[in-house]
Amino acid sequence: MKYYLGLDVGGTNLAAGILDENYHILEKMSIPAGAGRDIAEITADMAKVSKMVMEKAGVTTADVSSWGIGMPSYVNPSTGLLVHANCFGWRNVPIYSYLEHHFDLPIYIENDANCAVLGETLAGVGAGCKNVLMLTLGTGVGSGIILDNKIYAGADFLGAEFGHTKLIYHGKQCTCGQFGCVDTYCSARGLVEQAKDALSENRNSLLLKFCKGDLSRMSSKTVFDAAEAGDDTALKVLDQYIDYLSCAISNFVVVFRPEVVILGGGVANAGDVLVIPLQKKIYENTFASKEIGVPPVKVAKCGNDAGIIGAAFLEKYGMDRRKK
Amino acid sequence: MKYYLGLDVGGTNLAAGILDENYHILEKMSIPAGAGRDIAEITADMAKVSKMVMEKAGVTTADVSSWGIGMPSYVNPSTGLLVHANCFGWRNVPIYSYLEHHFDLPIYIENDANCAVLGETLAGVGAGCKNVLMLTLGTGVGSGIILDNKIYAGADFLGAEFGHTKLIYHGKQCTCGQFGCVDTYCSARGLVEQAKDALSENRNSLLLKFCKGDLSRMSSKTVFDAAEAGDDTALKVLDQYIDYLSCAISNFVVVFRPEVVILGGGVANAGDVLVIPLQKKIYENTFASKEIGVPPVKVAKCGNDAGIIGAAFLEKYGMDRRKK
Repeated sequence: MKYYLGLDVGGTNLAAGILDENYHILEKMSIPAGAGRDIAEITADMAKVSKMVMEKAGVTTADVSSWGIGMPSYVNPSTGLLVHANCFGWRNVPIYSYLEHHFDLPIYIENDANCAVLGETLAGVGAGCKNVLMLTLGTGVGSGIILDNKIYAGADFLGAEFGHTKLIYHGKQCTCGQFGCVDTYCSARGLVEQAKDALSENRNSLLLKFCKGDLSRMSSKTVFDAAEAGDDTALKVLDQYIDYLSCAISNFVVVFRPEVVILGGGVANAGDVLVIPLQKKIYENTFASKEIGVPPVKVAKCGNDAGIIGAAFLEKYGMDRRKK
Repeated sequence: MKYYLGLDVGGTNLAAGILDENYHILEKMSIPAGAGRDIAEITADMAKVSKMVMEKAGVTTADVSSWGIGMPSYVNPSTGLLVHANCFGWRNVPIYSYLEHHFDLPIYIENDANCAVLGETLAGVGAGCKNVLMLTLGTGVGSGIILDNKIYAGADFLGAEFGHTKLIYHGKQCTCGQFGCVDTYCSARGLVEQAKDALSENRNSLLLKFCKGDLSRMSSKTVFDAAEAGDDTALKVLDQYIDYLSCAISNFVVVFRPEVVILGGGVANAGDVLVIPLQKKIYENTFASKEIGVPPVKVAKCGNDAGIIGAAFLEKYGMDRRKK
């Protein structure tokens, strides 16, 4: 039997898993990432936790065909360098040379958001689909796309940056420097800002009570909680936020027409309160929806495991960034 | 030697060509489409002009491996029916059964805009590129995309409708019924509307003189001509139009990162007056352009031939809509 080894590298933890061919995680382990240490130490720990999980699962390098790694960065295919990993302060690092002496296996490195969409497609709510769009509504808006069973990131592997397409023509400035980006309006940060703006015009809103009078404690959950409690201001904020998100998604739908749109990240945890009105608005706001429909929106279910699962199957479904 | 047979079907003409393997048109012929006639008559003429051009080129069915056809429609892969061809008033037509008895060759049918982008990629300004975006700025905004050398139209072949992505959040109503579409702001029709709006506020503009006082004669060329003559109103209209177009293109660039963006259609005929400021604005308005650049914008050069060229090579670079 063949096994699959995946490692999800984050700024906090290094999480490795051994999977079977049905995308089930047989064993997983996690150790602290130890950000701030030397690159040699961190990469040695990346190998260490991967070997630990193999041992735990009773698997040797003979049983796996590659080492798949998801990182909050990507390898530039023309230089072979890891472009940057902000959580570790790395820039243009020859990552393969740090890693390859630890394992006698081919190494595949991919952006962690791309690994997550692959994981959700193989083992999560995208199972059975070959064309999937995923938006992660966290601090920012992450995005990943699977086209015909493969990770897609644009012709030069630097694309699929849906979060930085423009939703509002010359709208608010985004953290990227551009204006009106989807990221600015549809992220958890954007939702919180919209709630704060609304609160400044209506101090009687439950929004203030639900964040205990401390605006710095406002989260996307605060907005959903206040809306659920029937607060008019929160309901209006949410309605507007869902309209923003529906228009963003409509743009991706008319171009890619994925079989499913998956939402991940903190905002998506709201579940049906978000998804049901969102689905309705996507239908209303999308070109030709009456004639050809719109894809279903589903909330991701693999959580943090998605990154490990996707990483483990990079050899099979990833883009080989070293080939070009 | 092998030859390639392509037919471009329009509401006015049926244009067929025989090409060599280097995408050169060896012979081409065109006959009136005769819209309004019975489907059997029109499809018989589609075969007739194709046979005529073969005869002219001294080529038989043994020398070609397929019959490629571009039409202002597409075949639904689940039904095998041509969905609609507005120019002929056809809806859900079993097009293959009308065509296949005329020729003992496999038939490939594709949307004409997709054929045009393929033609421009093989034989025009996209030559040598494997990832190309083309926008046709005509009455509406047509679009086509080549990904890794193949026509791409979304997971269900109904996508890549860039013209109906939203540029302006809840903006002007589009002919499609939605609001704020790229089509509404970036088409020749949109440019003309923007010029008329500007003219209503400044009746002294040369725009009025250049359309001989008759607003119904206003075209995109009128705007470019008045701008070239230094008319302030026309210059402002053009500047705004180019900004709209740059933001639309930026959205496609951050997702697909094509090697080149090709512009076709009437507006693109303006050439450098459009392309040079547009290129600058795309750089300004696109995420991460400083770090990773933006693709060059080029004006299509194959004209009406692009459709024939693309059609002729559908077997090789098209999507087989009948397979699914």
